[in-house]
Amino acid sequence: MIQLAPSEQREGMLALLDDTTRREVTALLAYAEDDAGGLMNTRFARVRSDMTVDEAIRYLRRQISEQLELIYYAYVLDRDQVLLGVVSFRELLGAPGTKQLRELMHTDVVKAADDMDQEALSRLFAESDLIALPIVDAAGRMKGIVTVDDIVDVVQEEATEDIQKIGAVEALDAPYMQTAFFDLFKKRAGWLTVLFVGETFTVVAMGRFEDEIQRAAILSVFVPLIISSGGNSGSQASTLIVRAIGIGELRLRDWWRVFWRELLMGCALGGLLGLMGLLRVVYWPSSDGEGDTDHAVLVGATVGFSLLGVVLWGTLAGSMLPFLLKRFRLDPATASAPLVATLVDVTGLLLYFTLALALLSGTLL
Amino acid sequence: MIQLAPSEQREGMLALLDDTTRREVTALLAYAEDDAGGLMNTRFARVRSDMTVDEAIRYLRRQISEQLELIYYAYVLDRDQVLLGVVSFRELLGAPGTKQLRELMHTDVVKAADDMDQEALSRLFAESDLIALPIVDAAGRMKGIVTVDDIVDVVQEEATEDIQKIGAVEALDAPYMQTAFFDLFKKRAGWLTVLFVGETFTVVAMGRFEDEIQRAAILSVFVPLIISSGGNSGSQASTLIVRAIGIGELRLRDWWRVFWRELLMGCALGGLLGLMGLLRVVYWPSSDGEGDTDHAVLVGATVGFSLLGVVLWGTLAGSMLPFLLKRFRLDPATASAPLVATLVDVTGLLLYFTLALALLSGTLL
Repeated sequence: MIQLAPSEQREGMLALLDDTTRREVTALLAYAEDDAGGLMNTRFARVRSDMTVDEAIRYLRRQISEQLELIYYAYVLDRDQVLLGVVSFRELLGAPGTKQLRELMHTDVVKAADDMDQEALSRLFAESDLIALPIVDAAGRMKGIVTVDDIVDVVQEEATEDIQKIGAVEALDAPYMQTAFFDLFKKRAGWLTVLFVGETFTVVAMGRFEDEIQRAAILSVFVPLIISSGGNSGSQASTLIVRAIGIGELRLRDWWRVFWRELLMGCALGGLLGLMGLLRVVYWPSSDGEGDTDHAVLVGATVGFSLLGVVLWGTLAGSMLPFLLKRFRLDPATASAPLVATLVDVTGLLLYFTLALALLSGTLL
Repeated sequence: MIQLAPSEQREGMLALLDDTTRREVTALLAYAEDDAGGLMNTRFARVRSDMTVDEAIRYLRRQISEQLELIYYAYVLDRDQVLLGVVSFRELLGAPGTKQLRELMHTDVVKAADDMDQEALSRLFAESDLIALPIVDAAGRMKGIVTVDDIVDVVQEEATEDIQKIGAVEALDAPYMQTAFFDLFKKRAGWLTVLFVGETFTVVAMGRFEDEIQRAAILSVFVPLIISSGGNSGSQASTLIVRAIGIGELRLRDWWRVFWRELLMGCALGGLLGLMGLLRVVYWPSSDGEGDTDHAVLVGATVGFSLLGVVLWGTLAGSMLPFLLKRFRLDPATASAPLVATLVDVTGLLLYFTLALALLSGTLL
């Protein structure tokens, strides 16, 4: 709480604490809120390696009643507070009372640096299946523990931020209903404006083909179908890849394997939608029910091949953009579904009208 | 693992276990994988209320060395295994050795029913800040414990499923790279096909205005800009609301407050984009640089008001659809960004051309 308060109020808040707690809190304030150091608790169970099990239990029972808050593992430290090993409470209580801790302790301790960011920390928890992780500084001195219940909140918050970014909203700092109207407006209007400016290029793209549309208005009728299919396939690809990168399933070096996979997937999905589009045009009479039947197959082919191309392009753009963002150390989740859709819209229009000119020149055009 | 195996292989797998473990596993198999019962561990620390602290510690030390895997709290049960209270290990170790557990234990135990689903369970963990929760049956008999480290995985998995649904992909059962190509194809092609069929209504909608487009091709040039703005604002609204419902920030009864909030938000965002659209049409010469300037203000007004309407409608549809789905006991996350965009596209087109007819009849049309 003190971490979130403006710095001029911190002094006053610290003065309200007792001496021991104030020393602890002041030490923790040195860490960033989203570092391992900022999440940790300094009241952990410390023991020495030359203690026997019975001595350690007696010692911990005394410590607990005084100040320890959390106790799942007892950490074996040397005189300089360097972490030597760890004994779980289960092991301590289950071992013969006269055994020395140095014989009982595990020396291959899973630990985290105090400047590790919380995403990496949550992955370490997921891999290690531990209830608490010791936090050490660069010299190997133990500074505190982070417990898994704090990580649940971190995982939840990070997923929420990812979801909001995928929906093209800047991450909110508070729950939806607690976010002030104007803050929420700013966080939505920013991306909407960027996307709007991006979409104005569709006006330029379509404007180039205004004469063709004047000659064959039927062409414009399929524009929403084609660009939205590209956008939808791009949304699918980008959300899958953004999440897989976010939880560490995919790393930057995997981009090549993903590229080939999504190339095939784009061909398969594009082939499916292209075929559906072709059949839709050829077998469903146009709404005014006249005239166009001669050209139906040609228009159908134009629509079908455009769908194949635009879905393939959407799938590739959606899957590669998150990698590209990560390569330049930006957040892959910025590759929101709407951003990918906007990218695909302009190129989809150019593809469609170029194909139309190639296939329909001399007939409809 | 046995839970995931096909039932005909279960017998063989169970035969590999020792007697005690087999009894435990068989009992757990009665629960669904995603219920509290399916997540729980039956090896918890049981004590009686008439034990003293010293007796309980001696008893637990013997139990631990034999079979207990996890120990953070000791649960006080009566002869019928009904849960009476709980003592944390910290309290047990810190208390005077002669004190009876009935004086030490907390009787207001936070517990979960064995058929509680895992989403509700993860919320209970978040609210209670406990490391482990006792699981009881309908008669109050304690069946096991669920520890918070299992919940981290649950929270992570559920967020991933939500994200995949928001991207209009059916939830994957395995990581992206471990999902077979054809499974991935099916999970993407299903929704893409549904959305494609939905989008074919844009062909019908635009087909109705083919004559108007023939007369004023300039009208069709703004179609992608208008429908994508509706889709983008809908994506923002639906992802915000889907996530807020998913983590329990919003409940069904909140729909009315959200409705008014998003109505205002839709007007604000729509006003912004509408104004930008109006200025874009009036002050940016059309690509062919001739002719349209007389009608620029009228076309600008048509585009501007259409943007206002479509963004307002997208925002309302995106925010209300998740509530509607929840009302009918469907998953709110089904209100994916592409689904909302598809819904908005058809109505957006009708709105735009209807406005165009009203404002431009006698001039351009």
